[in-house]
Amino acid sequence: MTAYDRAPAFLTIDVGAVVANWRLIRDRVGPGCEAAAVVKADCYGLGAERIVPGLAAAGCRTFFVATIDEGIAIRKVLPREVTVAILGGPLPGAAADLAEHALTPVLNSLDQIGLWAGYAAATGSRLKAALHLDTGMSRLGLDAPAVAMLAADPALLNGIDPILVMSHMACADETGHPKNRQQLTAFQTLSGQLGLPARRSLGASSTIFLGPDYHFDLVRPGAVLYGLNPTPDQANPMAAVVALHARILQVRDVDSPMTVGYGATHSVRGKGRVAVAALGYADGVFRSLGNSGFGVIEGERVPVVGRISMDLTTFDVSALAPEQARPGALIEIIGPHQAADDLAAQGGTIGYEVLTALGRRYLRTYQGEVV
Amino acid sequence: MTAYDRAPAFLTIDVGAVVANWRLIRDRVGPGCEAAAVVKADCYGLGAERIVPGLAAAGCRTFFVATIDEGIAIRKVLPREVTVAILGGPLPGAAADLAEHALTPVLNSLDQIGLWAGYAAATGSRLKAALHLDTGMSRLGLDAPAVAMLAADPALLNGIDPILVMSHMACADETGHPKNRQQLTAFQTLSGQLGLPARRSLGASSTIFLGPDYHFDLVRPGAVLYGLNPTPDQANPMAAVVALHARILQVRDVDSPMTVGYGATHSVRGKGRVAVAALGYADGVFRSLGNSGFGVIEGERVPVVGRISMDLTTFDVSALAPEQARPGALIEIIGPHQAADDLAAQGGTIGYEVLTALGRRYLRTYQGEVV
Repeated sequence: MTAYDRAPAFLTIDVGAVVANWRLIRDRVGPGCEAAAVVKADCYGLGAERIVPGLAAAGCRTFFVATIDEGIAIRKVLPREVTVAILGGPLPGAAADLAEHALTPVLNSLDQIGLWAGYAAATGSRLKAALHLDTGMSRLGLDAPAVAMLAADPALLNGIDPILVMSHMACADETGHPKNRQQLTAFQTLSGQLGLPARRSLGASSTIFLGPDYHFDLVRPGAVLYGLNPTPDQANPMAAVVALHARILQVRDVDSPMTVGYGATHSVRGKGRVAVAALGYADGVFRSLGNSGFGVIEGERVPVVGRISMDLTTFDVSALAPEQARPGALIEIIGPHQAADDLAAQGGTIGYEVLTALGRRYLRTYQGEVV
Repeated sequence: MTAYDRAPAFLTIDVGAVVANWRLIRDRVGPGCEAAAVVKADCYGLGAERIVPGLAAAGCRTFFVATIDEGIAIRKVLPREVTVAILGGPLPGAAADLAEHALTPVLNSLDQIGLWAGYAAATGSRLKAALHLDTGMSRLGLDAPAVAMLAADPALLNGIDPILVMSHMACADETGHPKNRQQLTAFQTLSGQLGLPARRSLGASSTIFLGPDYHFDLVRPGAVLYGLNPTPDQANPMAAVVALHARILQVRDVDSPMTVGYGATHSVRGKGRVAVAALGYADGVFRSLGNSGFGVIEGERVPVVGRISMDLTTFDVSALAPEQARPGALIEIIGPHQAADDLAAQGGTIGYEVLTALGRRYLRTYQGEVV
């Protein structure tokens, strides 16, 4: 018997499609702008160790992760001259880890600049860093007063080679949002005040699609690499990366009134059939999909009925022939008929959260890897 | 530098508390009833390899998991005479895996009975199994017509030793729900019709607290082992198992109007401070907690402001002194002041989903293990 025979559900990840998506972005921004890759959160849950080598082989030379541990993990599959930037920046006491693994911190505050400059001074070394300016996210980044202090006192950066000045957009998925242009202007102003000999970067996935004004010297595609739609009000220009299918464990014929699942939230009145599939919220199929999500069997949508259980999900398959919905058959959860973005909309969230929530019990298969 | 120095967030799991919770259930059901343990979904996300040995050392002799792979994983840390039951049952082609690892399938349908009996016949062996009767979940399990067929034709079980007849409750967390007694009656009726020389089991966590009528010969505590409240309308009788804390990466002083996070969904008007903590929805802090969840710093609740990001969450810390909310300090997400059930309520879900969603980037520490 193989792992396939006993697997309850199957996650297929097309590394070739990730690489194709990266190339599409690279070609879109043109030769004057570098296409980096955002591979944090284990490539949005899809597996950094399998995907990052493919992107590197395609020519990607700058990778962004969130944490130092993520940086250490991908450094193992990347040559040392490739830039690995840590978006969370240095933590007190972790500067030596950053240096040892040739990781480039993104410095988000004067505190973090002080930590990194202090480590440079203590070790007598010059250290690369990116500087992150906050232009309207109010999350990580130097705000206007901090930028003014830095501009007035360049010695704060002693020992640091700033290789990138960056910011991040709050509303780039809404093309007409006034905040987009406000943040663009703020980025131009603040980065101009600093006047550092560093490249500039503003654009993550959706921002790239706002047009060339937003590209600057380097773009940071993330969600688009994994097939999510950067322009929710238009067709998705990206190739699909993820497919998720679950086995049907049992099909129940109903001919008397009954309720389905926890809390008895769904009632079956007429004749029908309910299929039980072998995945649930422990696999990342959110409880919010109860009585609102869909699966697909042979191209036909089948609605989720009842609440999502930890390991099981129930679908109304009454509209299908018995031979279509039978034990052992597969239900598409994400695939050609239903994108991760679609599933997200059914559950009241975004495709990003669908991907990062994908569980550990799937039989994972990678396609299109570099060999 | 250690993993502690660079960790963005910390998950602490008290194996001793899990064992204490199991003992509390064991003592509650008394000597005439066996307390098993439900350890599926990797012990609800908390780590089966670390927890299962503690339960076995305390005397637990029956474990339930969802999938065959989960059974194979815990068999590695359990002696062969301990029962490991697979709730999903046998999949076509996986019977040999079950037998090889001494796993006991839960047979949920006549199809699954046929698979297991067929494997017994093909190998000339007698095989243990549990039988699952559906009494109102309409999920997995033999329905009344299937039970009647089985009662009429005991040869269907040739080669099978049924060691347990079980069912599962739909509304046990609502003490007064009429479905509880209906399912109890149905279970008595259907198991009586079968008349097998097997022990009987109806109760998972909340069901156990419905009283001794629901205990039968074996109970299957799951959520309660991990500290979730089986009686949501009453105080939680279980010991806390999980603590989750995240580091503050940056604290921003605000003195002009601004918006926080993606979509600009939160506006700060007066003076204040916003802390950015190093965890997000990729770590299982659901997006549904945006503008609705809380953290705790030194016993003070601090509200989540703005949307949850993939790797970051922003809190309004204006009510605290600057030295309380500073970079490097910890925010409690789950802990003494805020249970997993509380976080779940803030995000519109249940504690079960909070636990199973806990991410992989935490520095995990286990306390109270058997040594």
